[in-house]
Amino acid sequence: MSQETTRRFDAPQLHRQVVAILRAWGMPDESAEATATVMVETDLSGIDSHGVSMLMMYEKLLHEDRLKLDAVPRVIRDTPALAVVDAGAGLGHPAGLFALELAIQKAGACGIGAVAVGNSHHLGALGYYVRSAAQRGLVALMTTTTRTPVVAAAGGTTPILGTNPLAFAAPRAGGAELVIDMSTSVVAMNKVKAYALGGRDLPVGWVVDRGGRTITDASLAYSLLTTQGATLTPLGGSSTETGGHKGFGLSLMVHVLSGAFSGAALPLDDGDSDNLGHFVLVIDPNSGTGGGSPAGYVDDLVRLMSRDEPGVVIPGDPEAEAHTGRSRDGIPVPESLLEHLRAVCGRAGTDMILTPVG
Amino acid sequence: MSQETTRRFDAPQLHRQVVAILRAWGMPDESAEATATVMVETDLSGIDSHGVSMLMMYEKLLHEDRLKLDAVPRVIRDTPALAVVDAGAGLGHPAGLFALELAIQKAGACGIGAVAVGNSHHLGALGYYVRSAAQRGLVALMTTTTRTPVVAAAGGTTPILGTNPLAFAAPRAGGAELVIDMSTSVVAMNKVKAYALGGRDLPVGWVVDRGGRTITDASLAYSLLTTQGATLTPLGGSSTETGGHKGFGLSLMVHVLSGAFSGAALPLDDGDSDNLGHFVLVIDPNSGTGGGSPAGYVDDLVRLMSRDEPGVVIPGDPEAEAHTGRSRDGIPVPESLLEHLRAVCGRAGTDMILTPVG
Repeated sequence: MSQETTRRFDAPQLHRQVVAILRAWGMPDESAEATATVMVETDLSGIDSHGVSMLMMYEKLLHEDRLKLDAVPRVIRDTPALAVVDAGAGLGHPAGLFALELAIQKAGACGIGAVAVGNSHHLGALGYYVRSAAQRGLVALMTTTTRTPVVAAAGGTTPILGTNPLAFAAPRAGGAELVIDMSTSVVAMNKVKAYALGGRDLPVGWVVDRGGRTITDASLAYSLLTTQGATLTPLGGSSTETGGHKGFGLSLMVHVLSGAFSGAALPLDDGDSDNLGHFVLVIDPNSGTGGGSPAGYVDDLVRLMSRDEPGVVIPGDPEAEAHTGRSRDGIPVPESLLEHLRAVCGRAGTDMILTPVG
Repeated sequence: MSQETTRRFDAPQLHRQVVAILRAWGMPDESAEATATVMVETDLSGIDSHGVSMLMMYEKLLHEDRLKLDAVPRVIRDTPALAVVDAGAGLGHPAGLFALELAIQKAGACGIGAVAVGNSHHLGALGYYVRSAAQRGLVALMTTTTRTPVVAAAGGTTPILGTNPLAFAAPRAGGAELVIDMSTSVVAMNKVKAYALGGRDLPVGWVVDRGGRTITDASLAYSLLTTQGATLTPLGGSSTETGGHKGFGLSLMVHVLSGAFSGAALPLDDGDSDNLGHFVLVIDPNSGTGGGSPAGYVDDLVRLMSRDEPGVVIPGDPEAEAHTGRSRDGIPVPESLLEHLRAVCGRAGTDMILTPVG
């Protein structure tokens, strides 16, 4: 698989292609533009698993009639600093952006603002949302439930929780951002897939079968994960000795924040749509009296981390570097994904307009 | 050490003893009552490391003139839903409770409320605070910086971060609470100490020396940790392969939330007081229009976790069980701690009033 041909495409062209597909599927212009922005920015940041490559999954949801692309997010409960939004079974990106803007408004007025979203679908990578808030001088926390049960509770072997990710961002003086974007499982599903495609053995403890035995054959592990025959361990692993109960706790926290206010699907719920829940929290350090900016503090903090340690990577920096490089050189798209996009365009009745730059 | 005599004491008597010591040290009555409540409730919940056993550490801080026991927490910045509090170099418990009450007020008015506290000291176990919010039907998140650098950044070997804990609680229908209270290191320091006292080898990966080599000799590990010769790994371990970068990211998030708004000490800062920072966030699901309670949802969620899995432990349940048992049978106090308390009473010029119940 590592031999696969990869071509590079300009981000603005990829953006136009995604918009064309989404509009052909019936998504209103504004939502299509917003969604394409999140997807292409995610590819620019090097998170290939959560960008344009998700279109095939969205097409499947659409054809299964689970996804309502013309949905408009709607506030169903409102207080000065907290709102609940119904995403109308639409794609998560417009709902996520709507919630982020609403939380930013509330934070501007109240110092902090939060929005819970229910009745939603996949919204891409959380990192995009929280980073964009940090780029506006704000601190943001975001969580979401995920669709497929792949993680067991600590002490269990039944797949019951999604990879329930959590993201956090804060501005750094000098124009950079601290960005944490992590699943609460030991790794994300796509990491296992990447090992399978690369023919590499998995590290011990990533995947365990229903009998609690670790599986290192990556292809077998991926196959079992997709059929509920195995589980990803929580962050911290399968044992409390290594902190697996903490990853389990974090996963529950993510599910409660994302789902309890918005009434999103509980694990194993199987409704007419995915009914995912998201939660976004924004703190505006410039609101109210007194002022003050955390950016200098955050920059001092992260500089301390790598002061004597060349091997330390500051969360968010690799994605910022990828963004710079890919904005300049184009976004690499493997031939297999191009084939898929061609087929998606064909089924949607829209032109494939992509022309490689390299 | 496992042979040590342990006696049991009634919680109300232990509470009176702690109040007497704190008052003898010069703490105002109201703060002493509040602090003793947090400490004894923590012992009742089985968290022996963060309750009454901390008195010797507080005495040391007091004698070093770092701790101002007569401090009164003061709001230094206020917006409708977010405030910043200066703890006046006082003990963290009164400041933490003050911040919690203020966040609860703000959440009642705005749906969500948050308070950052700076210039503070150790505040005990976060679990007490968030559970007490959940017992009032609220959802709460709390973080704090910690004093001693013992955790390295992912990819580094220099002790630079504290164990930076995070706690979260939500009410469950039927009167129980989901309570997560975890350090963002692989384990807390007191776990290493417990292994050392018990003469047991540490699991591989908990502690690594400055060369990056794992140390399994628990006594050596504890000794090196207290002299900056080794580090606790972040949750997820020392390698990105097992998610160590995620624990590192969570630790940074805790430090930013706890410190960036309140101006608490950065790692390695060595001021006249500890200048710890705390952050408490409360969501009031009953505020505003629409109503709704997450308690039923949270209860359904946690019941799903253990439905087919007898080995699954719901976070917060062991502490609730300990609380029931110790409220009935008394709080076990080992002889060595009793000796310390006797000495503390002697130095403070207050009577030792403890009489064992068993």
